[in-house]
Amino acid sequence: SKFFSIKCSPNVHYKITPQARDRNADSYPLTPNAVLIVTMDAVSKTANDSKVPAVHPQNIFTLRISLDVDADRDGIVEKNNPNKGSWKWGPNGHGAILLVNCDSETTNKKTLDSEVEEIRKVSDLQDMSKMILRTNGPAELPEGYKLTMHISQTTSENVRVFRPHYIMVVGTDMLTQKVPYLGGKTELEFFVEGLRFPDKDFDGLITINLSLLEPCGKGFPETPVFTDKVVFHISPWIMTPNTLKPVEVYVCSTDDNHSFLKSIRNLVEKCGYKLKICYEYMNRGDRWMQDELEFGYIDSPHHQFPVVLDSPRDGDLQDFPYESILGPDFGYVTRHALNEEVSSLDSFGNLEVSPPVTVNGKSYPLGRIIIGVAFPTATSGRNMTQVVQDFLWAQKVQAPIALYSDWLVVGHVDEFMTFVPAPDRKKFRLLLASPDAGYKVFKSLQNNGHGNNCIDWNRDVLKKELGLDDEDIIDLPILFQVLEEKKGARAVAYYPDMVNMIVLGDQLGIPKPFGPKVNGRCALETEVRSLLEPLGLKCTFIDDFAPYHKLLGEVHCGSNVLREASPFKWWNLEL
Amino acid sequence: SKFFSIKCSPNVHYKITPQARDRNADSYPLTPNAVLIVTMDAVSKTANDSKVPAVHPQNIFTLRISLDVDADRDGIVEKNNPNKGSWKWGPNGHGAILLVNCDSETTNKKTLDSEVEEIRKVSDLQDMSKMILRTNGPAELPEGYKLTMHISQTTSENVRVFRPHYIMVVGTDMLTQKVPYLGGKTELEFFVEGLRFPDKDFDGLITINLSLLEPCGKGFPETPVFTDKVVFHISPWIMTPNTLKPVEVYVCSTDDNHSFLKSIRNLVEKCGYKLKICYEYMNRGDRWMQDELEFGYIDSPHHQFPVVLDSPRDGDLQDFPYESILGPDFGYVTRHALNEEVSSLDSFGNLEVSPPVTVNGKSYPLGRIIIGVAFPTATSGRNMTQVVQDFLWAQKVQAPIALYSDWLVVGHVDEFMTFVPAPDRKKFRLLLASPDAGYKVFKSLQNNGHGNNCIDWNRDVLKKELGLDDEDIIDLPILFQVLEEKKGARAVAYYPDMVNMIVLGDQLGIPKPFGPKVNGRCALETEVRSLLEPLGLKCTFIDDFAPYHKLLGEVHCGSNVLREASPFKWWNLEL
Repeated sequence: SKFFSIKCSPNVHYKITPQARDRNADSYPLTPNAVLIVTMDAVSKTANDSKVPAVHPQNIFTLRISLDVDADRDGIVEKNNPNKGSWKWGPNGHGAILLVNCDSETTNKKTLDSEVEEIRKVSDLQDMSKMILRTNGPAELPEGYKLTMHISQTTSENVRVFRPHYIMVVGTDMLTQKVPYLGGKTELEFFVEGLRFPDKDFDGLITINLSLLEPCGKGFPETPVFTDKVVFHISPWIMTPNTLKPVEVYVCSTDDNHSFLKSIRNLVEKCGYKLKICYEYMNRGDRWMQDELEFGYIDSPHHQFPVVLDSPRDGDLQDFPYESILGPDFGYVTRHALNEEVSSLDSFGNLEVSPPVTVNGKSYPLGRIIIGVAFPTATSGRNMTQVVQDFLWAQKVQAPIALYSDWLVVGHVDEFMTFVPAPDRKKFRLLLASPDAGYKVFKSLQNNGHGNNCIDWNRDVLKKELGLDDEDIIDLPILFQVLEEKKGARAVAYYPDMVNMIVLGDQLGIPKPFGPKVNGRCALETEVRSLLEPLGLKCTFIDDFAPYHKLLGEVHCGSNVLREASPFKWWNLEL
Repeated sequence: SKFFSIKCSPNVHYKITPQARDRNADSYPLTPNAVLIVTMDAVSKTANDSKVPAVHPQNIFTLRISLDVDADRDGIVEKNNPNKGSWKWGPNGHGAILLVNCDSETTNKKTLDSEVEEIRKVSDLQDMSKMILRTNGPAELPEGYKLTMHISQTTSENVRVFRPHYIMVVGTDMLTQKVPYLGGKTELEFFVEGLRFPDKDFDGLITINLSLLEPCGKGFPETPVFTDKVVFHISPWIMTPNTLKPVEVYVCSTDDNHSFLKSIRNLVEKCGYKLKICYEYMNRGDRWMQDELEFGYIDSPHHQFPVVLDSPRDGDLQDFPYESILGPDFGYVTRHALNEEVSSLDSFGNLEVSPPVTVNGKSYPLGRIIIGVAFPTATSGRNMTQVVQDFLWAQKVQAPIALYSDWLVVGHVDEFMTFVPAPDRKKFRLLLASPDAGYKVFKSLQNNGHGNNCIDWNRDVLKKELGLDDEDIIDLPILFQVLEEKKGARAVAYYPDMVNMIVLGDQLGIPKPFGPKVNGRCALETEVRSLLEPLGLKCTFIDDFAPYHKLLGEVHCGSNVLREASPFKWWNLEL
């Protein structure tokens, strides 16, 4: 044919491109690129209620389908948001949000909600994101047509979608499933449950598709004639800096921290917060509440709840996060080290977060995570396990900073830093431990007469009464600490008091000072040896720390020496 | 009569003064001042065996008497030393020496030998000074004549004199007693036992008299016609400086000092001395061997033995000196406080002695005692009890020096000084504890890169990654100590690490640092308050020392805070 003409039902409109119609004729030239566009005023009332105008007329129907989510993040599932199929960060961004259903609605026979495929309580739906399938079309789909929801293999590990009444549509081991078509103008509610936090292998994005499938005749797969899709982002796990308002304070009760507990209780009650005590049966003597867990939260426009991150440290407190903290609207997440050694750096005293900061114009309104690691150039040393580091980096919203904490015996960043709120500047101050400031305090005390004046006074008396010169006196490096007593302040040796030695001829038994090690040797021992060995004296450093030093005595206090009488006869004194 | 003449037995010689004899006559003018001196060639063989030539002839006898002691201090009782009746210090001095018989010859039912009036063992005589009564005269004294030994009332408290066989002659409650006269040329041995050490009311000198008494007729007291006397000086209690050769080392065994004991044993055995352990049944947990007792000795030309001075401290070790140390040739002396309070300054870690010194030309060849007391101008404060101080001063030979030790909690001079032998100069060095030297060591370590460089590195990272200025950072005065571990050296906070705090809004729960007290306030707390309170922060210092700090953690490590979520929504981040 070289030309064609068109006839159709009154509610069907058409348009032909290119618009090349023979003047005054009702026929169109049939060119290779001619396109006929058919539209209808309203959706179909029954299947195939209209005829398509064409060279070979066919039955057609119309149907409006929209898989809707809260893509504008206002807590309400709006209609057919044009941006629902993609995800964009920022206040002008878009895309729906999903929570990992990591709390436990049940307190009896507790498991993570995300670990059971059923929904066991209606309240669990609150932890999920609503998704609505809006359809408007004929009472029934034409024979062979159907709606299906489908997800990718990868996504099936991260999400589950439920429809009433708690029937899983897609999710684990179920990539695609037919979705009921109810006919007319209807809304079908779905509940989307996040299963996994963003991590190294998962960016947190989840795509859910809905397709209308057309039968293709025997032996051929059904063909999607229409597909809608929505994209969710799983909420990251977010840490809370010191500048956020406290809710509850957690401490352990042990057999020896009664008065500490009392002090903490007083402080917490004064502040009006809640004190939660982890008792002995649970902590089994492990008092390091900071180290076994880190509190954070997950957040979405419709719901928010705290989530405890359980450390792979797994001390005797290891059951506490799961057994005592996990519950309704209190989530739980953990990471287990696989082929890595867990070290003290995995304790969460080594995991902190800064208050909000802006760095070179880039803002971190949730602050930045701070962890401690081995020195960057170190070939050995302890580190935070990679699984935990990967988890923290994957949350993206609190871009971590790695500090060097392996220089500490315990190795936690909270040993040398913390943040406190402040009214001015950045609304906080970073507090750093400073040996230099420490020295300055002690030096200034000394300069102001609180130093070794007592010993100086005695030194003068001894010089005078024993006829000594300065060369007869050797000053051993010993610090004294002033303690307050009922009747004023008095001093005790700060570390084992090396002068309190036992002298056995040229052999000296000296309290082991446990000073700073330099090149593997105690700097205090080295100093004392350098002072005494040139005199032919032999120094043996004796560990008296626990049984003597801590009880305010040393080697000399704990010993006595019977000596030979003097060869000088007392009666030969010239008195 | 105006003249007289003389006739006598052949062995009697005479001389008359003034020598005014009538020329060629054998008669002498009888003037009012004429004196007839009669001498004999030999002592009498029987009483009244010669006639005295006189106007009225009478019977006379002769007798040599000498009460002898070792007045030249060579260990042998010489004959009739012209200086035996007085006492003089020095190599050119003279006078006998007496020991306090303060040991115990018996080990069963032990008492001080000086506390029993009997001599229970022959060996006890070695602790006494020999005294010999040498007589040469007639076989018997004329009727009515007798020899008596006598001492003063005061002396009777300080001495006992025994004659064979263990019969007390004079002493307690016995001021005078007849001494047997054996006739001819005889020696009678006495044993003199000292009972008391020199003290405030006793200069150590003891005088013993021997008299020949002449009868004076009925109703009249006997008259001494001849008296001899000897003077003893009691040996002072003498301390032994560190420069004297050790004999035995004493330590306590407690339930927690096993490895300390092992170290001491190794040292003592290496030196070749003897280790004496005071076991738990005796020390009852009191490990302060230095404090309960001080070893010294007493010395005489004939004998010397160690003497333990038992402190009025009387800790749980109080029975040890008497029960375990006192024995044959190991003396014991103690002083009890009467109306004084016994303080820590009475422990003998607060009683030391210097090596021999010479001060402004005055020599102290036995050294000088050193004790610690309250500051001279202090109106209150602890002191060594007066009874002990009196005792020490009264020994005279180691003139004490009082130092100021009350500034120390424990208050012992051995906390800040000791003496060690040296090959040169005064043959010793005085070692003094020196905070200044301590600061210098730590400062130099810091300057050489062993200081807070790790924190500085982290500070730089934090400044860069959080966009902080120096004004955003507050340096808290905290010292770190480097401990050696298997894999190199690592640091721990030296005192409670104040940065490891709990932040509850503007309320801070800070580890109590137990720093030096100045004007009754902890200087570290004061410093930290001055840094934080201007920011509106409230500091509560919490004592976490025993249950946390000592286990290498602090308040923050031992707590956890659940906080509200950030008001900032994570999806509004511009990533």
